[in-house]
Amino acid sequence: MTILVTAFDPFGGESLNPALEAVKALPSDIAGEKVVTVEVPTVFGKAIEAATAAIDEHQPSAVLCVGQAGGRFDITPERVAINIDDARIADNEGHQPIDKPVVEGAPPAYFATLPIKAMAQAIRDAGIPSSVSNSAGTFVCNHIMFGVLHHLATVGPHNVRGGFVHVPFIPEQTVAKPGQPSLSTETITKGLAAAIAAIVENERDVATVEGTTH
Amino acid sequence: MTILVTAFDPFGGESLNPALEAVKALPSDIAGEKVVTVEVPTVFGKAIEAATAAIDEHQPSAVLCVGQAGGRFDITPERVAINIDDARIADNEGHQPIDKPVVEGAPPAYFATLPIKAMAQAIRDAGIPSSVSNSAGTFVCNHIMFGVLHHLATVGPHNVRGGFVHVPFIPEQTVAKPGQPSLSTETITKGLAAAIAAIVENERDVATVEGTTH
Amino acid sequence: MTILVTAFDPFGGESLNPALEAVKALPSDIAGEKVVTVEVPTVFGKAIEAATAAIDEHQPSAVLCVGQAGGRFDITPERVAINIDDARIADNEGHQPIDKPVVEGAPPAYFATLPIKAMAQAIRDAGIPSSVSNSAGTFVCNHIMFGVLHHLATVGPHNVRGGFVHVPFIPEQTVAKPGQPSLSTETITKGLAAAIAAIVENERDVATVEGTTH
Amino acid sequence: MTILVTAFDPFGGESLNPALEAVKALPSDIAGEKVVTVEVPTVFGKAIEAATAAIDEHQPSAVLCVGQAGGRFDITPERVAINIDDARIADNEGHQPIDKPVVEGAPPAYFATLPIKAMAQAIRDAGIPSSVSNSAGTFVCNHIMFGVLHHLATVGPHNVRGGFVHVPFIPEQTVAKPGQPSLSTETITKGLAAAIAAIVENERDVATVEGTTH
Repeated sequence: MTILVTAFDPFGGESLNPALEAVKALPSDIAGEKVVTVEVPTVFGKAIEAATAAIDEHQPSAVLCVGQAGGRFDITPERVAINIDDARIADNEGHQPIDKPVVEGAPPAYFATLPIKAMAQAIRDAGIPSSVSNSAGTFVCNHIMFGVLHHLATVGPHNVRGGFVHVPFIPEQTVAKPGQPSLSTETITKGLAAAIAAIVENERDVATVEGTTH
Repeated sequence: MTILVTAFDPFGGESLNPALEAVKALPSDIAGEKVVTVEVPTVFGKAIEAATAAIDEHQPSAVLCVGQAGGRFDITPERVAINIDDARIADNEGHQPIDKPVVEGAPPAYFATLPIKAMAQAIRDAGIPSSVSNSAGTFVCNHIMFGVLHHLATVGPHNVRGGFVHVPFIPEQTVAKPGQPSLSTETITKGLAAAIAAIVENERDVATVEGTTH
Repeated sequence: MTILVTAFDPFGGESLNPALEAVKALPSDIAGEKVVTVEVPTVFGKAIEAATAAIDEHQPSAVLCVGQAGGRFDITPERVAINIDDARIADNEGHQPIDKPVVEGAPPAYFATLPIKAMAQAIRDAGIPSSVSNSAGTFVCNHIMFGVLHHLATVGPHNVRGGFVHVPFIPEQTVAKPGQPSLSTETITKGLAAAIAAIVENERDVATVEGTTH
Repeated sequence: MTILVTAFDPFGGESLNPALEAVKALPSDIAGEKVVTVEVPTVFGKAIEAATAAIDEHQPSAVLCVGQAGGRFDITPERVAINIDDARIADNEGHQPIDKPVVEGAPPAYFATLPIKAMAQAIRDAGIPSSVSNSAGTFVCNHIMFGVLHHLATVGPHNVRGGFVHVPFIPEQTVAKPGQPSLSTETITKGLAAAIAAIVENERDVATVEGTTH
């Protein structure tokens, strides 16, 4: 059995992407499953293509996409992807779609099929702050999450679970950004490993209190 | 023509709800439209019933629901409502649903049909900070937004636009909450009036940059 | 009896200074005392000269200097001024002193002689967030506070109390600054009036818990 | 030559103190100097006694006290200690002084004699966020900094430099504190080592822009 983990290349003027740095440092086996990591481009369209090609190649039992959420304080499994591309900045090939569907004719949203609450709890049990997020934004992170979940729901394979986790900046990135939180690469890697173990160990999610009032 | 504006009663231990205070102070006419305001209970199910009853009674051309988002810095039109109730706290009748659909069998999400970007711009043009939000949370605010949009999409009337705006705490509420932002009731009322004028003046939304990377 | 209130002109690229806007709107009498307001330049040296000239002219019973602290959430009476000018940005005449004493040979610091804890409590009693701050920074705000307290301690008149209050941005300023808190001009004026009443009513400060762990 | 580094035991309900954890992991030699670390109690009076006893015993060339500043985003060398104890919470022996001098009859403040700007720059050069802080609060951190600087200025030895650095929470502490920033113990240790090297390498501080407007 294989867990496929994707991470984006740097974007938005950054020289590194903490998601990619942390994912590259993951162990090759977690909770008895093989971990395969793939770098994907921060480019609308191509990000989904790279992820679905990796799904076809590796035939994983679960897919976890990982991306940077600069400004967040903790590691955040995402609950839902919405069917919209609405870019604040241009992607790495200069595209900046405004209010376009990720997939024309697809549903308005997909909920993650990974056990997001169990993942957040496992990360916290590892001594690392974590919470469930209800928005992956409207850029390439939401885009790949939507695209992967749509692919799994339509093309399949249908029993494969998928989802997304956002991670904060690492300290190196915040040296020139006063007042921005960070977690170290080692901390993020440890948190992602705990989340992956929770994916393996929880076929279904737990029904705990992780919601938000807004 | 009538704009229907709903606001919740206080919840979560607060003695007032800034949304309700601000909505009660709205003028009765904005941009040539009649403004009708209705207080709705912070209770799963009953909130939607109160809103849809008011729609039936007042036959508005647009519905704007307003709620408190303690901790936010600005007034935030919401982009999307998701089909899930996942309460962090109990509602005002003690119900705390965990991972239940708002409406069984309904779509996973509805996008607001109000011109959210034009509203955010109009609020800013009035000198008040505003941005489009991509999550209304998983409590009664998201619940009423989803319920109203589902009602308009299924029962109708179908040409009526709907959506939600979250507003920050007011200063009175933050006296005992160091480090929490606020806007005064007067400022929020002025911002909501600008947003309502934008609803009247923009049949369709503008295609401006209001997205977020996460 | 007269309370002298100073406020700075705009600086740092801002088109207005919330301290000045709020101070200009103060009533001319508070708690039976006459309130005299004076605009002072955001310029090292000249700010102190303008304040001490106003002291000589108006012979007040207390001096309250007011300045902008962009990024703060509440109205903050300052506890202490330190004998250093260390400018992050140039003042309004292009001067940017680095690690220079405000007054050569003067003590390392002066504590405010206004009742800062009673002022913070009075502001909160008016429904407005407030706390005692332990640093007025190292720019012109700290500079004028130090200069005024040094003047009152050396030249006199010796029974005149002095101090400084920092106020947040107003909403107009934060429209282009996402994630920055603000209070409206009306709210700040109301808070300053409450603080001035507390100055009149409290010859000595109260011994309440207003300290910070760091 | 020896650098003496002190760190407090846990306080305020915490089960650990990140300053202590990080200091214990420091190497025994930095930039050719011997590093001696001492744990001090979070108790008014006893903290200073423990620090000055360690100065007498180890005859260091510099003294660096380290403490926790929960809520800060970066590692912050402190510019100044003020002559006041004003406790928000009780210390570890239940004392909570309100508006008492640290040392009766001593000056109102002492500026750090360590090269605080060079230290902040060295920490940033190590890829870790850092800035100069202008307030060490009014609790035991400010207290020990004032007490040590007063001891060095009066009792001596007079050529010994002294100061204080505040460090953020570590991730373990923020698991139950949503929205609080942290840095890992490893990151903090690395930052402190860089700061100590800067102490060794900079007899005098650099004249760079590190001030704040407030």
